[in-house]
Amino acid sequence: MSKFLIDKYQTLEAYVPGEQPKNMQYVKLNTNESPYPPSQTVLDRVSSAEVSMLNLYPDPDCVNLRNKLAGLYGVEIDNVFVSNGSDEILSFSFMAFCSEETGAVFPNISYGFYKVYGDLYGVDYTQAPLNSDFTVNVNDYKNVNKTVIIANPNAPTGLTLSLSEIEDIVRSNPNNVVIIDEAYVDFGGESCVELTKKYGNLLVVQTYSKSRSMAGARLGFAIGSKELISDLNRIKYSTNPYNINRLTLAAGEAAIDSNDYYMANCCEIIKTREYSVKRLAELGFSCTNSKANFIFAKSDKISGRDYYLKLKSNGVLIRHFDNPLIKDYVRITVGTKEQMDRLFEETEKILAEVQS
Amino acid sequence: MSKFLIDKYQTLEAYVPGEQPKNMQYVKLNTNESPYPPSQTVLDRVSSAEVSMLNLYPDPDCVNLRNKLAGLYGVEIDNVFVSNGSDEILSFSFMAFCSEETGAVFPNISYGFYKVYGDLYGVDYTQAPLNSDFTVNVNDYKNVNKTVIIANPNAPTGLTLSLSEIEDIVRSNPNNVVIIDEAYVDFGGESCVELTKKYGNLLVVQTYSKSRSMAGARLGFAIGSKELISDLNRIKYSTNPYNINRLTLAAGEAAIDSNDYYMANCCEIIKTREYSVKRLAELGFSCTNSKANFIFAKSDKISGRDYYLKLKSNGVLIRHFDNPLIKDYVRITVGTKEQMDRLFEETEKILAEVQS
Repeated sequence: MSKFLIDKYQTLEAYVPGEQPKNMQYVKLNTNESPYPPSQTVLDRVSSAEVSMLNLYPDPDCVNLRNKLAGLYGVEIDNVFVSNGSDEILSFSFMAFCSEETGAVFPNISYGFYKVYGDLYGVDYTQAPLNSDFTVNVNDYKNVNKTVIIANPNAPTGLTLSLSEIEDIVRSNPNNVVIIDEAYVDFGGESCVELTKKYGNLLVVQTYSKSRSMAGARLGFAIGSKELISDLNRIKYSTNPYNINRLTLAAGEAAIDSNDYYMANCCEIIKTREYSVKRLAELGFSCTNSKANFIFAKSDKISGRDYYLKLKSNGVLIRHFDNPLIKDYVRITVGTKEQMDRLFEETEKILAEVQS
Repeated sequence: MSKFLIDKYQTLEAYVPGEQPKNMQYVKLNTNESPYPPSQTVLDRVSSAEVSMLNLYPDPDCVNLRNKLAGLYGVEIDNVFVSNGSDEILSFSFMAFCSEETGAVFPNISYGFYKVYGDLYGVDYTQAPLNSDFTVNVNDYKNVNKTVIIANPNAPTGLTLSLSEIEDIVRSNPNNVVIIDEAYVDFGGESCVELTKKYGNLLVVQTYSKSRSMAGARLGFAIGSKELISDLNRIKYSTNPYNINRLTLAAGEAAIDSNDYYMANCCEIIKTREYSVKRLAELGFSCTNSKANFIFAKSDKISGRDYYLKLKSNGVLIRHFDNPLIKDYVRITVGTKEQMDRLFEETEKILAEVQS
């Protein structure tokens, strides 16, 4: 830290992303990436011809991409905002819709970045405790007169709220924005995009990082009333108008054109998740009913931290959180069946060692 | 605007980027892009193999790219920060180093985004008037006890301060950060990167958008003391840790590996600039002594706005600013000699029309 950093940021605790090892020696099940590469359409579209035009700025309005997303989700282009990863949308949303005055509420166990944004933008936020089974307590978000942020499915639990529960929350807070972070929705959750047509205070955030195999391209999008989208544009055009590069725009459009490929991958991941939950149960783990591309699991034989460390030293990377409320658990990204079988193989060895 | 946007942003005036026509029917000399494509090394490196790994997150620390930049500029990796375009660095810097308390000062005619950032982050800023010949008055920035932001070369004038003038400013403000925006430095300016080794309060910002033909890839970098860089990292990791995508990282590394190609292009652009300034003088224009990849020019026969509009209707796009202080001028990006000859051809027609 320099002596020049302004006071309010001096105690800021930044987000800590999952480990991103520089080499590929690990079976990488720690950051919820898709195990499948982008579609052939994406590979074809991000061509040399496209790269040779990198000397020219991208379209700051991202018209073609927003049109494609609008078509896919049955909304108008003015209902769609796109950004450099969905983190950027969350950051812009906290900036635009949360303050010391409006306040904000989100679960005490959820995507760790909500708290960071709350601190960064000086928001008076509340972290509502989950129920003891890790479900979200809907009553904590009804009639709260605060901006609401909920990940659905939630992370790292994978548990979902129903559409009618979401609607209750949205309807009961007509004077505040309700942000539903659907990063993991394509793996078995129900999207509330349709509700944005009925409620002007609902903002739905999604990402290409998980179901669309583009974590490395950085692309997120939000759907909401055109007024909410125009607010996000105001922040974008006041910070970084050219926030999405040409190649990511091309890849993002091509991914919509090959949507079937990605939806088939999601089905495969769901199948692998169900298989993996069963295998983990056989190994003595209990898992939440995850509808995401990760499993939230606890062993009765080994602590979360020890399991994570032993797997890591055996070449399999998963994620463990130090938060005392979930320290017994680990979060395991659903990879290919082959990757999961390697996980189970190493897990069997580790458990045998522990029990001996 | 929605009713949910928090009060302080309701009057915010966003930055207006230069027109980005969706078709290529214009000779595009309006947003200071390089007329030359990326190097063959960049084309080779942003390969199908690279695209096929887009399912994996990029390295959030951007170690390889920062190492290459550190090598090129003779500093350590901890002195280098990279971002999603240099606008993002400017945004982070205003956030980190400017506030109502610290204040800030920048020229009243400069990159239009400084004022937007000042408004966005609630900074108590001063816009110091340029001298009547559009030069920066160094005395306005000495001993000011405020954060200083100067573009060198300045935009849209193209005029430069000398290294010793920059050093005077930096030395006289030991308790404030001095940000020198060197977006256009590779076209004949003198970089003050070396001074960052002597002064912990100097931050130098550069971009790949102009001299390195990568406006479409979005990549900027900053060089400064490791404490300043660590402050920028704190903001980055609190907003968008994966701010640079895989393909831009690959392109950015490859561009450093083919630095000679880009420096040769800069020489060519400088030659074309000098040729163009001469041609414009023959046509009755007066131009500032620009050391950037654009020309700031005024005709004695036609207003800046009319000239811009007539050129546009004839298929050549340049930039005109409504700011009354510079409304007689236009900013013309230096393209290839062929593009500039087309500009002169259309200009001759327009002037003949005006005089008849």
